Formats: sequence, C-alpha cells, structure tokens
Amino acid sequence: MRIRDLMGQMPLFHGLQEQHLEELTDIVVDQTLGRGQTIFSGGDEASGFYVVVSGKVKVFMLSPDGKEQILHIFGPGEAFGEVPMFAGGHFPASAETLEKSRIFFFPRRDFLALLHKDPSLAVNMLATLSRMLRQLTRLIENLSLKEVPSRLAAYLIFLSDRDKTPEEVELDIAKGQLASLLGTIPETLSRILNKMSSQGLIEVQGRRIRLLDRQTLAEMSEGGKFLF
Amino acid sequence: MRIRDLMGQMPLFHGLQEQHLEELTDIVVDQTLGRGQTIFSGGDEASGFYVVVSGKVKVFMLSPDGKEQILHIFGPGEAFGEVPMFAGGHFPASAETLEKSRIFFFPRRDFLALLHKDPSLAVNMLATLSRMLRQLTRLIENLSLKEVPSRLAAYLIFLSDRDKTPEEVELDIAKGQLASLLGTIPETLSRILNKMSSQGLIEVQGRRIRLLDRQTLAEMSEGGKFLF
Repeated sequence: MRIRDLMGQMPLFHGLQEQHLEELTDIVVDQTLGRGQTIFSGGDEASGFYVVVSGKVKVFMLSPDGKEQILHIFGPGEAFGEVPMFAGGHFPASAETLEKSRIFFFPRRDFLALLHKDPSLAVNMLATLSRMLRQLTRLIENLSLKEVPSRLAAYLIFLSDRDKTPEEVELDIAKGQLASLLGTIPETLSRILNKMSSQGLIEVQGRRIRLLDRQTLAEMSEGGKFLF
Repeated sequence: MRIRDLMGQMPLFHGLQEQHLEELTDIVVDQTLGRGQTIFSGGDEASGFYVVVSGKVKVFMLSPDGKEQILHIFGPGEAFGEVPMFAGGHFPASAETLEKSRIFFFPRRDFLALLHKDPSLAVNMLATLSRMLRQLTRLIENLSLKEVPSRLAAYLIFLSDRDKTPEEVELDIAKGQLASLLGTIPETLSRILNKMSSQGLIEVQGRRIRLLDRQTLAEMSEGGKFLF
C-alpha cells in the first residue's frame, strides 16, 4: 500500500485536506525495526514523534535497580512520543519494539508548520493526547488505589471488552510484559494467576484465558475487598 | 481586572487574535467557589473544561475504601478537566477547591468551534495537555518505581527548583494533601519526615522545610538505595 493511503487510514489524519496528506507524505520517515529495538530512551532529545504502522511498541520507564513500568503498548495507527513536540524538553520515557515493527517518524518542525495550517490535524492530535491522559489516569488509579489482583482483573475485563470476547481473552503480550504493565514482577503475577485459577475465576491455557466468573472479576476490578 | 484582560494573561490564550479573545469572553462562565467545593466528580458527564483564575484546585481519585490519590494541584492560569472535551466520555477524576477559588468554565461546543478557527488556540492546548502527560508520567514513575521517601525527596527538590529557593521550601498544601499526592497516608509521611529530620537531611517548622543536605536529597529523589 502507498504511504499516502496508509496515512489516510490513521485516526490522527482523519478529515485532513488531500493537500495536507500529501505534505505529510513528503515529510514522513518510513522505518522498519526488528524486535527489541530501542526507538528512543527517556531523557533523549526529541526531534519529532512516531506512529506505529504495523507491529507493537512499548513505552516504559526503568528504576535505577532495573524494575520496569510500562506506560502503554502502542499498536497499528497509534501515535507515541508526542510530549516533547508540544511541551518542549526531552522524552519522559523510553520506547522499544516488542516485535518487528514498521514505524512512521514525523519531524517536529515540518509537522508543527502543518498543524498551524490545518485545524483538523490539531483537533485529532488533541483527541490522541486526551485519550493518553485518560489511559495514564487509569494506570495511576490502578497503581495507587488497587492491589495487583484487582489490576489484573481490570486488565482482563478491559481486553475482553476491547476484543468483544466476553468469555475468553487472548493476551497480546508476554506474561513478563503483562507483569510490568501491572506494576509487579512475573513471580507475583504467576502466583495470582494460579490463585484465580484454583478459585474457579479463570482457566489459563498459554496466552488464552477463559473468564469463568466474569461477575466476580468485574467486582474485583473495582478495587474493593476480594478473596485473597 | 476585566475578564478579557485576565484571559489575555493565561498561557492557554497567548498569541490569540483579539477577535477570538473577545469571543472567549462572550462564552466564559465566571464562578467563585468556597473552600472544599466539588467542581465535578469522576464519572460525571462533561459539558466543558475549566481554568483556575485564582485559588487552588485538586484533581484526584478515590478508592472504594476512601483512599485518595491526587493527580495534580492546579493554580492560577492552569486548565483542568479537558480530557472529555477531545476524547469524549466522562471525567476520569474528580475536582475540588482547596481554598476559595475563582474559576472560568468554557462550554464545550463554543470552545471547539473557536478551536477550529484559531490554530494558536489548538497549539496552546496541545502544549497544556502535553505538560499534563509529562506530569502524570512522573507521577507513575514515583508511584511504581520509587519508595515513599524518594517521592518525598523528589517533591522537595521540585518545590525548591520551582520556587527558586535552594535552601528552604514552603509547602503550599496541607500535610494530609501532601500524603495523598505522594500516594501514602499522613502517618507514614510524618514518620518519614521525622526520620529525615533525625538524619539531618531536613528541618521542619510547620509548613517550612529547610533542606539541610540537598545533595543527599537529590540522590534519594532518583529512587536509588537510601538509608531507611
């Protein structure tokens, strides 16, 4: 597919004038990276932002002793790394491919010039940043106000709703990554998965998890009292 | 001061055409609230967003058992409650005045219409949301990757840098609020303040805290190993 057509399918560029889509096509840098490649590191100088075309990218932070906290995993059509574009300064977190990924890079100066010309682009970008603010708010709620089992239950319900599969979810990331997303370590996650299984809430088969008692999971996800 | 002039001083409205500032003046709702008043609650339908003119507003979440996590405390000139404006849906968190506050409310539909007319307004709004994303990223780093003493040290260094007072900071919120901002409870915060004092790192006098050993505090704030 032509770059121009790929761009036309991205939510960030919906409603743009044809001429501006062509201008974007002129400034974009198209790159394909293997799995586990660093795109940028927290503290790096930023010269633009990125959109995932295909593949998967994690944006994360590391503590000095190596603990990882994933902020979000970005898939096709999603933009990341925009903070320094508009607020200045450096990247607040790091980005790395989780699998082979094709990524569009948009240089700051050219993109800002276009933004001043096309209000649709600015309004789409506001929607993108607002959705990310909502995601981070939810993550803070999970980290600060819920215990790990509640966070896991909330994530399972989230996946099930997102993929419209009420009885079963398929994890789209490895369990180690899931632990990092939930702000815990793989050992704790395994222990909780085992407990949930023995209580008849879920049934784990590799990356597939059957939701046997969705109502209890939904209650747990609210962060109230639960069984363990 | 006239509403039009107050508006002209707000970072969100810098660079706006005179005519658009006048239009904003026509749509704004000017309100003054006493201390401890609810502005909106998480889950409420949103019909616009807010800017603090004077006073202080906390945006926060509550767990089912009543634990509070502050996302941010907004002061004069700062906008809050924008997420549903651009991403749709409800307010993800709650907002309450911390003191008597004057607040401008901008109704959604009128504001969006103006946004489509004036790219400066959209670009300023992108900067506002990006700064908030950076703040929330920092908060997640604090909550997930640092222990409470590190978070406190980071906050003291932040205040000292912000207010350009290298040797002493003055807390601009009550200690109970500070505990909530750091994701802990007042008892734990008191214990940590006492330990830091007994180790000669700080000296607490009411809301004034002298930074006796700024270097150690800076090291602690990085989240590495520390003494307690």
